[in-house]
Amino acid sequence: EKNFFLIAGPCVVESEELVMEVADKVSTICKDLGIPYVFKASYRKANRTSASSFTGLGDDTGLSLIDKVRKAYNLPATSDIHAHEEAGMASPYIDILQIPAFLCRQTDLLEAAAETGKIVNVKKGQFLSGPSMKFAVEKIRKAGNNNIMLTERGNTFGYTDLVVDYRNITWMKELNVPVIMDCTHSLQQPNQTTGVTGGNPQLIGTIAKAAIATGVDGLFIETHPNPAVAKSDGANMLQLDKLKGLLEQLVMLRKAI
Amino acid sequence: EKNFFLIAGPCVVESEELVMEVADKVSTICKDLGIPYVFKASYRKANRTSASSFTGLGDDTGLSLIDKVRKAYNLPATSDIHAHEEAGMASPYIDILQIPAFLCRQTDLLEAAAETGKIVNVKKGQFLSGPSMKFAVEKIRKAGNNNIMLTERGNTFGYTDLVVDYRNITWMKELNVPVIMDCTHSLQQPNQTTGVTGGNPQLIGTIAKAAIATGVDGLFIETHPNPAVAKSDGANMLQLDKLKGLLEQLVMLRKAI
Amino acid sequence: EKNFFLIAGPCVVESEELVMEVADKVSTICKDLGIPYVFKASYRKANRTSASSFTGLGDDTGLSLIDKVRKAYNLPATSDIHAHEEAGMASPYIDILQIPAFLCRQTDLLEAAAETGKIVNVKKGQFLSGPSMKFAVEKIRKAGNNNIMLTERGNTFGYTDLVVDYRNITWMKELNVPVIMDCTHSLQQPNQTTGVTGGNPQLIGTIAKAAIATGVDGLFIETHPNPAVAKSDGANMLQLDKLKGLLEQLVMLRKAI
Amino acid sequence: EKNFFLIAGPCVVESEELVMEVADKVSTICKDLGIPYVFKASYRKANRTSASSFTGLGDDTGLSLIDKVRKAYNLPATSDIHAHEEAGMASPYIDILQIPAFLCRQTDLLEAAAETGKIVNVKKGQFLSGPSMKFAVEKIRKAGNNNIMLTERGNTFGYTDLVVDYRNITWMKELNVPVIMDCTHSLQQPNQTTGVTGGNPQLIGTIAKAAIATGVDGLFIETHPNPAVAKSDGANMLQLDKLKGLLEQLVMLRKAI
Repeated sequence: EKNFFLIAGPCVVESEELVMEVADKVSTICKDLGIPYVFKASYRKANRTSASSFTGLGDDTGLSLIDKVRKAYNLPATSDIHAHEEAGMASPYIDILQIPAFLCRQTDLLEAAAETGKIVNVKKGQFLSGPSMKFAVEKIRKAGNNNIMLTERGNTFGYTDLVVDYRNITWMKELNVPVIMDCTHSLQQPNQTTGVTGGNPQLIGTIAKAAIATGVDGLFIETHPNPAVAKSDGANMLQLDKLKGLLEQLVMLRKAI
Repeated sequence: EKNFFLIAGPCVVESEELVMEVADKVSTICKDLGIPYVFKASYRKANRTSASSFTGLGDDTGLSLIDKVRKAYNLPATSDIHAHEEAGMASPYIDILQIPAFLCRQTDLLEAAAETGKIVNVKKGQFLSGPSMKFAVEKIRKAGNNNIMLTERGNTFGYTDLVVDYRNITWMKELNVPVIMDCTHSLQQPNQTTGVTGGNPQLIGTIAKAAIATGVDGLFIETHPNPAVAKSDGANMLQLDKLKGLLEQLVMLRKAI
Repeated sequence: EKNFFLIAGPCVVESEELVMEVADKVSTICKDLGIPYVFKASYRKANRTSASSFTGLGDDTGLSLIDKVRKAYNLPATSDIHAHEEAGMASPYIDILQIPAFLCRQTDLLEAAAETGKIVNVKKGQFLSGPSMKFAVEKIRKAGNNNIMLTERGNTFGYTDLVVDYRNITWMKELNVPVIMDCTHSLQQPNQTTGVTGGNPQLIGTIAKAAIATGVDGLFIETHPNPAVAKSDGANMLQLDKLKGLLEQLVMLRKAI
Repeated sequence: EKNFFLIAGPCVVESEELVMEVADKVSTICKDLGIPYVFKASYRKANRTSASSFTGLGDDTGLSLIDKVRKAYNLPATSDIHAHEEAGMASPYIDILQIPAFLCRQTDLLEAAAETGKIVNVKKGQFLSGPSMKFAVEKIRKAGNNNIMLTERGNTFGYTDLVVDYRNITWMKELNVPVIMDCTHSLQQPNQTTGVTGGNPQLIGTIAKAAIATGVDGLFIETHPNPAVAKSDGANMLQLDKLKGLLEQLVMLRKAI
């Protein structure tokens, strides 16, 4: 029985120092624990709640820093794209194109991602059920690409909360694609009056353990050396120092299922 | 006290005959009742659940038929756009650019719409509260456009249902923009296993009356001579023959508030 | 077309002075506006969140003060019962037995209420749909009582919020019983960490107007001369001074439907 | 590290044969696997959706059959009570008094259960958050009883679905009481138009595995030799033949945490 894989990194490419530090530490931990590791950072944040939030260093800089990480640490990488024309732009630098949850129904975007031939990882909309993701899978397959992953990131639960429904793990696995739990965004507290999404990072372990027990293939965890000063998603990222301890528990759990 | 306005038409531009018939009948009804009328039809459907659903006649044909309606009946028109490059393409043919609910957080799209100088009507995401729409309003204002409208279209309520929270009407009016109730999509039943969104069109009157009573400025109602054969949203469109009776009731209600 | 009726009063019988003051003022307003009025106060609060909350003056005192109001102002009265043995105890003093929302599925309680021959007003559980209230109606009818009312009080929407789904008004009216909107408890904000349920009383007008527009037969509004010092539900009660202005608007709206 | 315990049995006491068969088989399995076992069956069903549903064989018969099981197999037993006067009636025959989810806020019922000195297991209301169960715990402690358990059974998610939020396991464990996952009722599909609650029993494994991984102390699983003919909750009970295989997996998972 093979181990789960990990998609991890800072929410957004803040600086070269940051992405290198995170890739270095996480790749070492994953090597020790036998966890296949995919580096993640967004080169652009296109759907921040507020117009005054940080959106990136520019697409070129962001993508080239991701590529630098790939080469320096021999890692596959992933980032999210937000419009069909970004698929071609980003695909040379990344191995898995991630489709944001809000955009998982945009046919043009799914098709453009599919046509790159890269792996397409579609995040399930907060407004969708697991079984209805079969339509996203079909759109990508119809465009000629069978390298598909689906990611659970919680469902809308009142205005200011999300809830993870683990039945979706079982249901999405029935679509015969790898299923990933996004342990970071599942804990968001949206619609805050400040315009800054809140979080509950102390519950990352709860979310991740239940995901492993119910059979996910991969985990997505945003991590940062100092989440309090992060430029995006600081409220939910796991402090980098806590990652190793969590992964050790999860590897043991994985062996028991 | 002025009357409410009406945004109405078929979900999608199916044919010239259809758009002309609907515009002709609805404009006559609205003239009789003193209701300012905006013709609505989508020139493209970009986020259908299933890849096999009808997505339009082609952008050029769709937009030119909308323009034909505008000129033939001297009506303003609206349609939805789905990517920033569509803003420039569509804006010569329409008066109100509608931002789909799933895309209401996409900063690039809001900015591109704002820059056309046209009215921008943002549909509230099914995952958002009314107060949090202030961030969408701010993004558009910051891009130099103060012609903004907001549309309520229901919130996620379990996987297969939406609920309209009328507190949002009050809350969005506090943002000092016209607020519209989308009586059609608020009644959707999403995530059906068939991939075709269901509906409850017999409840359009309930949704619309509560909206008028709570002070909306406009109503959005998709209508079709024969919803059963419509190429999109057939499950929720109001039969054209029933529109006049409903509007008469609503005009009386409006006078009482 | 007849007017709506009003069920109103303080949440709980706090003192003789309070119930007399409220009954006096509300009955005068309702006489002026042609609104049939039912006095409401709970003689016991059995399901407070916290054990340290006020639960009443004792059943005997509470019920006898309600009875005193009935006789002094020639008003029908209502209060809620919480266990089957309370039906017989309370029914001599009240005209409408109200079944709390949490208890609307308790068959013994519904049957005991039915057997008093009084009107039974069942509040819809926060976890129930309007159509499923037909089973509560059937339990009461089967026990030989056809004097049934149903009350909408909002549905669970995440942990700390309720939402009123006005489709339920239409659906419950199809059961051929009078339908009431509880404008007070629909605005509760449950599950607060303090153990004291919060509220949004400034939205009572929004809730009530949408209810009248969608055809409710009655409104339920808790009111208090000074909600800030009330012993229960202070967060949601309407200040008594504001009742008249609200009712005047609602009477006009009612005439337009 | 000790094992989890199991509360299991048929939903309701249907017959002596049934309760004996289930107790016999489940106690054998649990002995083999080192799982402490508590026999469960309701002696009365007081909150069936529909008045025509089966409610039990009568309280005396139901309780005496539960007692017979206890003595025959030397097992502790649990059943649910619905009114304060049932606490004294039922407590001689059962070891754990279970408070139904709809009734978890009824102070009189919690106090009456507390006063028996038996263990009180409160099911979390479908409308409550985990942290707010601290008020139920406090009511029982204040009545002098510290033998308290809390059970998760899912939260309202739209009208016809429930969702299990595993954050509640973590949050309720912080109240320092044993926490149980009710794997049966968490899978209910309420508010069906038939008046018979539906279910998803094929997902019991998903619910249970996530519960063990997140640290529950006990599991609650209704089981029946032939759920299709069961007189209550047939849509969700686990077929007795499948119990052993499931428990074996769960015991392995438990050892890994």
